Amino acid sequence: MERLKNHPSRRTFIRQSALGGAGLILSPSLNLPSMQATSIGGDSIKTKGYAARDSSGILGPWEFERRPMGDNDILIDVKYASICHSDIHQIRGDWGPQAYPQVPGHEIVGIVSAVGKNVTKFKVGDRAGVGCMVDSCMRCDNCNHGEEQFCENNATKFTYGAPDKSEPTGITQGGYSSNIVVRDHFALHLPDHISLQEAAPLLCAGITTYSPLMKANFNRGDKIGVAGIGGLGHLAIKLAVSKGADVYAFTTSGDKVKDILSFGAREAIVVDDLQKLNPYKGKLDYMIATIPVKYDMAAYASVVKPYGHYTQVGMPVGFQVSMNNLGLAASRVYYNASLIGGIPETQEVIYYCADNRVLPQIQVIKAGQVNDAWKKVVNKEARYRFVIDAATF
Amino acid sequence: MERLKNHPSRRTFIRQSALGGAGLILSPSLNLPSMQATSIGGDSIKTKGYAARDSSGILGPWEFERRPMGDNDILIDVKYASICHSDIHQIRGDWGPQAYPQVPGHEIVGIVSAVGKNVTKFKVGDRAGVGCMVDSCMRCDNCNHGEEQFCENNATKFTYGAPDKSEPTGITQGGYSSNIVVRDHFALHLPDHISLQEAAPLLCAGITTYSPLMKANFNRGDKIGVAGIGGLGHLAIKLAVSKGADVYAFTTSGDKVKDILSFGAREAIVVDDLQKLNPYKGKLDYMIATIPVKYDMAAYASVVKPYGHYTQVGMPVGFQVSMNNLGLAASRVYYNASLIGGIPETQEVIYYCADNRVLPQIQVIKAGQVNDAWKKVVNKEARYRFVIDAATF
Repeated sequence: MERLKNHPSRRTFIRQSALGGAGLILSPSLNLPSMQATSIGGDSIKTKGYAARDSSGILGPWEFERRPMGDNDILIDVKYASICHSDIHQIRGDWGPQAYPQVPGHEIVGIVSAVGKNVTKFKVGDRAGVGCMVDSCMRCDNCNHGEEQFCENNATKFTYGAPDKSEPTGITQGGYSSNIVVRDHFALHLPDHISLQEAAPLLCAGITTYSPLMKANFNRGDKIGVAGIGGLGHLAIKLAVSKGADVYAFTTSGDKVKDILSFGAREAIVVDDLQKLNPYKGKLDYMIATIPVKYDMAAYASVVKPYGHYTQVGMPVGFQVSMNNLGLAASRVYYNASLIGGIPETQEVIYYCADNRVLPQIQVIKAGQVNDAWKKVVNKEARYRFVIDAATF
Repeated sequence: MERLKNHPSRRTFIRQSALGGAGLILSPSLNLPSMQATSIGGDSIKTKGYAARDSSGILGPWEFERRPMGDNDILIDVKYASICHSDIHQIRGDWGPQAYPQVPGHEIVGIVSAVGKNVTKFKVGDRAGVGCMVDSCMRCDNCNHGEEQFCENNATKFTYGAPDKSEPTGITQGGYSSNIVVRDHFALHLPDHISLQEAAPLLCAGITTYSPLMKANFNRGDKIGVAGIGGLGHLAIKLAVSKGADVYAFTTSGDKVKDILSFGAREAIVVDDLQKLNPYKGKLDYMIATIPVKYDMAAYASVVKPYGHYTQVGMPVGFQVSMNNLGLAASRVYYNASLIGGIPETQEVIYYCADNRVLPQIQVIKAGQVNDAWKKVVNKEARYRFVIDAATF
């Protein structure tokens, strides 16, 4: 990792550290109720998690090691990790071939149990979260402007499955696990007025919907569409409602209508036939689509007013979206894609949701239930985010 | 046709007409050098043209009849019709099954040889053009706002291949023919300071590129990209240059570079490898793509600045475009599609091009050369618009 080149070597670091045995700089107070010194006796950090061994999408328990902490890293004792549809896509190879074993999970919350010597952003005992990325070049314009997911040096490192020579397993490993080492900049503060388990889904589902909604720059009373009401979509509804929008939620699941209305949507439209979109043609100011599979995008986009914007955040197989260009021309809608959000904006959505009580509807499960939960996610049966209790790994 | 419901019946109209035998109201002056009274002795109008008999894409001579003129129609003695890639797509069934025989052609210019009794927009002897559409409801908001191509009552009638009970052949028939009957509103004036043969390509290629370029609302000195330098692309370059843009033209044909620079482009980039796009990443203010086949759209869009716009006007097979959503997310570019332009804007581009000497580079051919010309269009060998001399039909 290039960023460590100018740092003292691991050996030097240990010599310099007052707590060389652990290889960690602990908080000055040493008041560490949650600390689990998992790296005792070695550079790498022992971890338990749930991993996929192949693209079948079946996960099982796995003990593995994480990279040694660097001076800018923190170690988080994971308390909860929630399940994102992306986990399934990636593990199954829908977005390209994967290395296995691989531990998914990029909605991660816990307690800081150790910090590297340069770390000032966190202290041991802090509540912290990790989202979809764990590193970037931190020097390019995009990184400097808080859009680390678009690092111009292609150094954005995603939380799991990214090649990483510093990791004993050769790739980054995600949050379905008991702990995680992460560069401090990429960890988020979690204020006390939100529960850890409710904060978890904000790290991906929250920021992924918040970022484009904020860019849409809508006004109170504007008509905002949300297509696909799962983990992302239900948060999109709540976020848009909290910002004063009249929300129109489009779902294929008739049994979600009651929930959707309880989230504050003005209308829940069950699109069991594309004809159901017709009454809304050209009516909405903006639409966000979370649908993570192929669908008739031009038909959905047609509900937006001419020259309005339509943002796709769901990423289908191969990241490939297709649409009828004549249909899109007829709607005169601008289409764009959005990918999560940068670290500053992720921090923003966490505070926003905590302050405004915009909370995901979650179901806490044990690690042993994860395979069943994945099936439910695929079958649109999640209501609306499964959160794994990391104590059960 | 609904719009004729409140009009006198054909029989009544003929009775009321001073020139009932022809079924036409001629211009008061009766000074008709170009008139060809092709409808003598019957309601329908005899026409010669080149038609496809099937989806093979081979055209041959065909004599057929057009519908009788209505009170709001004009008859145009066609002088030239130019060849658009869309003609080939449609005839080959790329956009859906077709009725045959079908005469393509929607870049049509000629001389008005007769006018219906309600027509005030044209008089016999006027130069006139017809583009991609020949009718619409004329009552909906879009029609009233000059976007007849997006008629809200789905009554936009395209120039060829559209089902039309009033046509003896059951469908509209296009401009590769000796004459055409068209509702006056859908015909365009062609000023004297542009040649008919140079005006022809403006009816589709001109308006299709002009409309999105004007909506892009760029400033002098802005960097405008044009991808795909054929009939549409070369006009897009000239239009953008004439509006003060620095134009970057992307082509896969190395032998077009000299032409492209002569059209006024700042740079001609030969994209024989997608890597050639890299130096332009995030550099352009706007891009228009005329490429009428599938291509790596997200790669091309990446040359536009974040939050800039990218417009696709080329319509591939099945109108289906696909793109890598992750790539589009990374570029943060807004994608839209544009379909020709309305009648008022088509009139605008014709005057603009005539006034500013923005003229297509054309090759005039005889009807017998049309099949060879189509092959050249598909093989990217057109330089840059074939214009058929209608006297040779």
